[in-house]
Amino acid sequence: MKRKGSRFERELLELFWNNGFAAVRVAGSGSSSHPSPDLIVGNGKTFYALEVKMRKELPLYIEGEKIRELVMFSNLFGAKPLVAFKLPRKKWKFFTVADLVETERGYKIDESNYHLGKDFEEVVGKYKQERL
Amino acid sequence: MKRKGSRFERELLELFWNNGFAAVRVAGSGSSSHPSPDLIVGNGKTFYALEVKMRKELPLYIEGEKIRELVMFSNLFGAKPLVAFKLPRKKWKFFTVADLVETERGYKIDESNYHLGKDFEEVVGKYKQERL
Repeated sequence: MKRKGSRFERELLELFWNNGFAAVRVAGSGSSSHPSPDLIVGNGKTFYALEVKMRKELPLYIEGEKIRELVMFSNLFGAKPLVAFKLPRKKWKFFTVADLVETERGYKIDESNYHLGKDFEEVVGKYKQERL
Repeated sequence: MKRKGSRFERELLELFWNNGFAAVRVAGSGSSSHPSPDLIVGNGKTFYALEVKMRKELPLYIEGEKIRELVMFSNLFGAKPLVAFKLPRKKWKFFTVADLVETERGYKIDESNYHLGKDFEEVVGKYKQERL
């Protein structure tokens, strides 16, 4: 599971590098005594701290503590916090904390808010307005 | 050697956390196919990408490629590149690329430029002008 998670993190890392961002995976992001995200990326203007998640299906539950740490880290560092979420045969989707649904013990992404996830193109500033 | 390097990286990480910066160690910084520094730190205003070095004594030699990658990464990410250098019983010193002495195959820090290294306090913006 940890290894599989790493593979997805590396896949996402490559995506950012291929789209004008410098990107790094954080060492020991699960074990450090300080809050730390899975990925940090920047392009000189925009910085994101990302928690990377994959599941076989909805819903995705995330501990409240994990999100609080992501926000705390991001605020101090100077980055925007995002949850990057991958479902099989779906493109990466990116959720702000406001997009998440609160549960008793944390947050979730389910059928009710999955559609709020932003596409990668929008996150890296290549979004084309197609609704006009 | 690698393990010892990690200990020094973690020591420096703590220093930044204790002085208002969010700091992370980069995973696989020596092995990634993309350039990556040892540490990235930020406080919402200032971002540094750091190459962390320790030696028992002067000089410190650094490959030219290593420095070029540090600069390349920093320019794309949006951080200032620094070499953090630790000698036994000395405080951490921080060098910009301009502070380094060029050699045939790269760069070095020796008796001629060691004094150019900035103190930690200056790097984190707590420098007090004491020369007046």
